[in-house]
Amino acid sequence: MNIDACKAALAHLDIEERDTAITAASRDFFWYSPVLKARLDHVVADFVVRPKNEAEVIEVLKTCYAHDVPVTTRGAGTGNYGQAMPLAGGCVMHLRHMDKVKEVNPGRVVCEPGVLLKDLDAHCQEDSGQELRMFSSTWSTATIGGFIAGGSGGVGSVHWGSLRDLGNIIRLRVVTMEEKPRVLEFRGEELARVSHAYGTNGIITELELPLAPAYDWTGIFVAADDFGTAMAFADELANEDGILLKIASVYEAPIAHSYFQRVKPHVGEGTNLVGLMVAPQSMDAFLTFLNRRPDCTMIYRSDDHDWPRHPGPVFEYGWNHTTLRALKFDSSITYLQVRYAFPEHRELIEKIRADFSPEVLQHLEAIRQNGKIGFAGLSLVKFTTEERLDEIIRLHEEAGALIFNPHRYTLEEGGRQHADPTQLNFKREADPKGLLNPGKMIAWDDPDWTYEKMYAYPQMRAAE
Amino acid sequence: MNIDACKAALAHLDIEERDTAITAASRDFFWYSPVLKARLDHVVADFVVRPKNEAEVIEVLKTCYAHDVPVTTRGAGTGNYGQAMPLAGGCVMHLRHMDKVKEVNPGRVVCEPGVLLKDLDAHCQEDSGQELRMFSSTWSTATIGGFIAGGSGGVGSVHWGSLRDLGNIIRLRVVTMEEKPRVLEFRGEELARVSHAYGTNGIITELELPLAPAYDWTGIFVAADDFGTAMAFADELANEDGILLKIASVYEAPIAHSYFQRVKPHVGEGTNLVGLMVAPQSMDAFLTFLNRRPDCTMIYRSDDHDWPRHPGPVFEYGWNHTTLRALKFDSSITYLQVRYAFPEHRELIEKIRADFSPEVLQHLEAIRQNGKIGFAGLSLVKFTTEERLDEIIRLHEEAGALIFNPHRYTLEEGGRQHADPTQLNFKREADPKGLLNPGKMIAWDDPDWTYEKMYAYPQMRAAE
Repeated sequence: MNIDACKAALAHLDIEERDTAITAASRDFFWYSPVLKARLDHVVADFVVRPKNEAEVIEVLKTCYAHDVPVTTRGAGTGNYGQAMPLAGGCVMHLRHMDKVKEVNPGRVVCEPGVLLKDLDAHCQEDSGQELRMFSSTWSTATIGGFIAGGSGGVGSVHWGSLRDLGNIIRLRVVTMEEKPRVLEFRGEELARVSHAYGTNGIITELELPLAPAYDWTGIFVAADDFGTAMAFADELANEDGILLKIASVYEAPIAHSYFQRVKPHVGEGTNLVGLMVAPQSMDAFLTFLNRRPDCTMIYRSDDHDWPRHPGPVFEYGWNHTTLRALKFDSSITYLQVRYAFPEHRELIEKIRADFSPEVLQHLEAIRQNGKIGFAGLSLVKFTTEERLDEIIRLHEEAGALIFNPHRYTLEEGGRQHADPTQLNFKREADPKGLLNPGKMIAWDDPDWTYEKMYAYPQMRAAE
Repeated sequence: MNIDACKAALAHLDIEERDTAITAASRDFFWYSPVLKARLDHVVADFVVRPKNEAEVIEVLKTCYAHDVPVTTRGAGTGNYGQAMPLAGGCVMHLRHMDKVKEVNPGRVVCEPGVLLKDLDAHCQEDSGQELRMFSSTWSTATIGGFIAGGSGGVGSVHWGSLRDLGNIIRLRVVTMEEKPRVLEFRGEELARVSHAYGTNGIITELELPLAPAYDWTGIFVAADDFGTAMAFADELANEDGILLKIASVYEAPIAHSYFQRVKPHVGEGTNLVGLMVAPQSMDAFLTFLNRRPDCTMIYRSDDHDWPRHPGPVFEYGWNHTTLRALKFDSSITYLQVRYAFPEHRELIEKIRADFSPEVLQHLEAIRQNGKIGFAGLSLVKFTTEERLDEIIRLHEEAGALIFNPHRYTLEEGGRQHADPTQLNFKREADPKGLLNPGKMIAWDDPDWTYEKMYAYPQMRAAE
């Protein structure tokens, strides 16, 4: 690894020289996890480069290849799995300058990876009343490239399912890291090579994504004394085929009272909360649905309320923002990512809640999977020790819940605990030196890994 | 009933005088059913009036009320349950002049009942790239008022469910038939009073409906040698959350070969066909889905084909158009309307097919119900006798399939075989003399009816 020669060769590009800025650009939201915090807090790149277009991306990859410099690509760095942490140092390639929206058509958009989700939506809305099918709760700060390379779904998944579902990504344009980088266009089955691959096997320089109509979504909070009532409300509402939703979240008591500052004056400690975004043309139907459920009370609707302090967008209470809000009040909180699949989702959640509440508090997001509504859990966990956290995870899995462990920085451990041959095979082809986001794909580093303990990337730079 | 006085009082309106035109306006598509044909073929109104606006509707209803003249309201008369047949004669009120689209907003439209579905869609498309969430296969000839008052779902139900589902109708404006007709606005729970009530308890003069984005849908035919393969294809595709569909139909062999004239050259007698409309932004994903199923072959896509004769819109092969096409080749064909509910829908269909094919050929439409994909069956039946038809229906019900009997002209018998207290109670209020579309609501005529045989409206005019 010849950092100095590499930097010199790239000196005509936008290179960040200041140590504080390099440190800042070397971090993502890994610190949601005390486990990752203990292991990654010292990680820092040697330099940061910000290409302005695909040609500069190619130049960066080619030059780093020549000098054996690792490249970790990032957008806004809002991922929670350490996706954008440069474990072996080297170059962080920051795509913030590549923020052009190139084309908007009915039902689709073509853009560069560095555009913020919020700016992309504003562009599509302005152009033709459209918006992204789904986005992360970090909509106002995150980039589309980061969401596709490091995310799995989010706000909108209650209607459209997950990013990995057929049709939620149309096309990705990808640059390889070889002596002579190639530019490839992926569609269909090929998309699985690089989507949710953390930039380990190619760099996305252009995306084509499906759009949905943009509506002036009504943000809503519904309160219920009973957790099961709140959960059933969200589940049954999400199963109403004629009521168009963008999000349906469930927060076990006392999450809302303890951690949602502007909601707190309107709820009690025992209030279980449902957060919703409902299309305005569905509001009458929603109110009809609500009125059939006297145990549930609407305490807020964004288009008509008397709350002295506006709570902000309802989606900024959901998905990973729930954890963020809890962390602001209690730094010992961390979280799990759980999947409770239809049809036993509610029973399984009740069982797990009975076993773990309040050490683990249920935060659920209704999500479509294979055509049916289930729940994604982003449970809040009162952290004590890594051993206890591992035990909680094991007990969830034994009960039948699928865990995507957010306390691991590898693709496999944060996923389904096994190598993805599609991603691995493409890495062999596209990154022969293994320089792209090193340490994130166990299958590349250690094909015989057995997952019996947490993987520790051997080449990770030691803390100084 | 004083017809002459009534006609004289309405003489300044657009009244149809010609016998042939009165006969034409007294008929709907009841003749799909040999049972209804035997009973309703002679039915004819005394006169036809075509109001131009709500004030004229009020005048017609008030005048007919004063003279005890029954009023049967119709749009294009494309219903198959005899919805618009004036069993007791009197006045047919034809709403074709009330065809204004009043307002289009994001996600919703306000219009009059007499606008054709096709014209309404064209208006919404032109205004803002929107279209109806769902429509009947008679889109090019049917009216929106007739669809709401007499229909239950159709093209689009694979995504949005049925008209009766919360949110698929926003508001209906309704005129009552009293000494002084009232104008009422219904939303929420109140909508159930008059939607799918055949105009028996009020006349819809304005509708507000939700819209979906209009896309340049790609029409597709997929062929499979095995029926179960074709059915699974449609079911699994409709469960792909990221692939946007407008219709997914399944046609058991030899329906396509026998009855789909322009498809026939491209299929064999043993070909089971799947008809689809896929959003263009979902086409890549659809092709990916298709390529995973080597037993299924795409034989047509509307945007790229070499068929010498264009088959027309794919939706005009589905829903009730399937029966219509079959009837053109074989006048002894009739049909059933069946609901096969998730999760046993496929097993149930296979069982019924084993029992009845080819006397009953499966024609299925994928439809969302309570959040899950199931099938609506519009089975083609080789008619022999009424007794055998009743037996087939009974055996379907015994097997666990829900039948909406299209060989009956009453709301109850074409529905769930019991009185609807919401509709009945509103009829008591809105139509005290029982003059609105008489003979269609058994609960009004004969509250103690036991459904042991086919209801015969006692006041039906005898054939001359």
